Amino acid sequence: MMLSRKHLNENLLRAEYAVRGSIVLRAQELELQGKKIIYCNIGNPQALGQRPLTYLRQILSLIEYPELMKQQATDDLYPKDVLAKAQSILERHPHGSGAYTQSTGIPFIREAVAQFIRDRDGIPADSDRVILTDGASKGAQAVLLALLREKNDGFMIPIPQYPLYSASIAMYNGKQIGYYLDEANRWQLNEAALTESLHESKPQGIHPVGIAVINPGNPTGAVLSYDNIKMVIQFARRHDLCIIADEVYQENVYDPDSKFYSFAKVMHDLDVKDVPLFSLHSASKGFLGECGHRGGYLELRNISSEISAEFVKLQSINLCANVVGQLTTYLMVSPPKMGEESYPLYIKEKNKILSALKNKAEILKIGINEVEGLSLDLPQGAMYAFVKVELPAEKGANVEKMKEADRMQYEAQRDSDYCMSLLEETGICVVPGSGFGQLPGTFHFRTTFLPPQNEIEELVLKLKTFHENYVKKESVLS
Amino acid sequence: MMLSRKHLNENLLRAEYAVRGSIVLRAQELELQGKKIIYCNIGNPQALGQRPLTYLRQILSLIEYPELMKQQATDDLYPKDVLAKAQSILERHPHGSGAYTQSTGIPFIREAVAQFIRDRDGIPADSDRVILTDGASKGAQAVLLALLREKNDGFMIPIPQYPLYSASIAMYNGKQIGYYLDEANRWQLNEAALTESLHESKPQGIHPVGIAVINPGNPTGAVLSYDNIKMVIQFARRHDLCIIADEVYQENVYDPDSKFYSFAKVMHDLDVKDVPLFSLHSASKGFLGECGHRGGYLELRNISSEISAEFVKLQSINLCANVVGQLTTYLMVSPPKMGEESYPLYIKEKNKILSALKNKAEILKIGINEVEGLSLDLPQGAMYAFVKVELPAEKGANVEKMKEADRMQYEAQRDSDYCMSLLEETGICVVPGSGFGQLPGTFHFRTTFLPPQNEIEELVLKLKTFHENYVKKESVLS
Repeated sequence: MMLSRKHLNENLLRAEYAVRGSIVLRAQELELQGKKIIYCNIGNPQALGQRPLTYLRQILSLIEYPELMKQQATDDLYPKDVLAKAQSILERHPHGSGAYTQSTGIPFIREAVAQFIRDRDGIPADSDRVILTDGASKGAQAVLLALLREKNDGFMIPIPQYPLYSASIAMYNGKQIGYYLDEANRWQLNEAALTESLHESKPQGIHPVGIAVINPGNPTGAVLSYDNIKMVIQFARRHDLCIIADEVYQENVYDPDSKFYSFAKVMHDLDVKDVPLFSLHSASKGFLGECGHRGGYLELRNISSEISAEFVKLQSINLCANVVGQLTTYLMVSPPKMGEESYPLYIKEKNKILSALKNKAEILKIGINEVEGLSLDLPQGAMYAFVKVELPAEKGANVEKMKEADRMQYEAQRDSDYCMSLLEETGICVVPGSGFGQLPGTFHFRTTFLPPQNEIEELVLKLKTFHENYVKKESVLS
Repeated sequence: MMLSRKHLNENLLRAEYAVRGSIVLRAQELELQGKKIIYCNIGNPQALGQRPLTYLRQILSLIEYPELMKQQATDDLYPKDVLAKAQSILERHPHGSGAYTQSTGIPFIREAVAQFIRDRDGIPADSDRVILTDGASKGAQAVLLALLREKNDGFMIPIPQYPLYSASIAMYNGKQIGYYLDEANRWQLNEAALTESLHESKPQGIHPVGIAVINPGNPTGAVLSYDNIKMVIQFARRHDLCIIADEVYQENVYDPDSKFYSFAKVMHDLDVKDVPLFSLHSASKGFLGECGHRGGYLELRNISSEISAEFVKLQSINLCANVVGQLTTYLMVSPPKMGEESYPLYIKEKNKILSALKNKAEILKIGINEVEGLSLDLPQGAMYAFVKVELPAEKGANVEKMKEADRMQYEAQRDSDYCMSLLEETGICVVPGSGFGQLPGTFHFRTTFLPPQNEIEELVLKLKTFHENYVKKESVLS
């Protein structure tokens, strides 16, 4: 027998993941042929020249090879506080990086995460409700696997969304209930849109079990206001929904008028104790950008011990998250303190990364808004801009008369064509808006602002020329 | 709303994972109370005193903190070949450990894995069919997720088996089709037992899609003969089954009369090209024992590009395996070469670990067989012994008259009670046979032989006294 598509799980066949789709594969081909590619498709800072934080890497190197700490020469290579911190990690966790840990992660790291939440939000946090994961994706998938019981269970996800959610919901045999983010209102959540999406799902027999919110937003770059979060919590409470709060970009807020509020904090302020909350964080984003280490955590809140035990069991089947990732998460929540030898360099490196991101976001925003037919209100945060693209109507194509599915496919093809042409002509690699979802009749692409500043400047210029020519060509064809 | 069990996916509720179950939790409690525990429950070498290989950790430390390589002092701390190897890794993969890689893993590492297979087996291997995974578990889960289409699809798994398989099949909503391993014949697979298990599954409407084989065996410690593997391949071919070959213990063969053969090699020898084969390997076992780094790979064979692309997509949803784990896998398949400065120490450390395991397996075997009522033919390989325990029949319990499910539960309780008493009285932590599955009317426990030799000697003595007293007590009650 040879395996064919009919032998494979339909849920897998149905799942799509645009961020690593055909445009990226084509970019890799072009690069092999010698073309210069500006990779703006994925939030992968260290692949785009961002340097890792010295403090973090020094400690990881000592944990990997503790023999170093017995050598005289090592004292010349590492600051004293780094040596002391590595020592204190190994005292609390003598097995080091090579042994499985408890299923939910190393206890002192879970406690450090709980302390981080207490300090960040001024609220209580319980280390027994913290699970260390291989990046935040694994946390999101654990929650979706646990909550989607059968094919009519639905999970509310934003449009546009990060395709981890749509792909995982498809894989775990649930239904996605898309709710539109409000582009006219800086991509905040909109209560009427939430209600409408629920309303539309009911006649299809879909039973909503939860809502996923990404704050700061991916792909939108939006930072949700306190009131917006409050509205979502009250909405979830009224409709018996669990909440996944995907807060991996919490450190990435650039707009001085915006501030990150966690769902946990707002929920605590509201004294809401009957909305189950699953909060995600990661060492991949922020200013660490340690994507390759796959560190992150899932915090459970308003969840009983009995249910929490089922999440622990799920982790135990997976044995445990990778230990270096766990340590990376530890160092994220436990940076050097003022007065320690490493502190000044740490702050300098941190500020350099964050201010560069802020600058690049600004350059992108100004540059893009100067192009007629491209527009962008944000980003306030994250590492992404979701750029609106005006495309002329195609001659002979009457979208109003198309069936919904046909229209979606037609429009997805149009923005894919746009992004593929952009790649072929300029080497700029972005992801079509249809990969994240968008309102019918609108077109977007997602770009990161991670490449070095000179490349962002180059991108803005090339984009202008490209877009003007593209629209001209399309208009002639129309 | 508060979440209760009715809100959770039944597949998750049904899944069980004995290796990290109630006995282990009790052991952790006792340890906190000051009792000395001998942890024989899990294959976690570095938690039991096994030291990591110097070569591997030196290279990882340099990759984590490449700045070291610019410092003069570093030359005194690392051998030249280690510095050169770290340099060559960073030349081929300049992003280092902090960036996402290609979904299937870093290309040069996938090529090194393919070369490892070519060298090991003398057969062709294609790096485009190698996927680097977070340990072998994730590879097994990917295959099960992809192949189990609906609730009547079944996967054949051994009894006894490593519970990753039963738990994952339950989670992905498939059916397990257990086939008994032949205890009387050193736990080899038995064709009649395979046929019988298929035969019994058919009237239940179960559609078999694949068979999982663990070689060397977990929990049995068996090394399958060439002919046994050949039989399994021909069986799979006749019945249109895919094969998962879980070969994570391939380096752990102690019996001089046994030899590891990969399914890939035997399949190549037989010129079988129409049985899809998924082979798993890991850096967690062998002599590296790097469980915490979660490195491993999945190799696809006799699988078309179209189907392989679906596995790549599945990986892309998970972004990529952790990079330090990928590097650990690289160093597993690419050890230092004869003549290099690190070679003698590497060989010395490797041999020390493997010969200690061999000794401890021997001590365990001899010691256990001296206890009346305990018996053990193996281990030939892996890190486990599956010890047969004779328990006296309980007065009033007529197992023959029980329904099958009741009998299974009753017998599972009996071997759990045995292991719990063993823990309470001696501090020895093992896993009941019922956690892996066993023939009705037989009792077993799985123990590793990973603890230091003096603890294995202590274990054997304590076990003798415990077992004699336990049987005496039970007999009085009967």
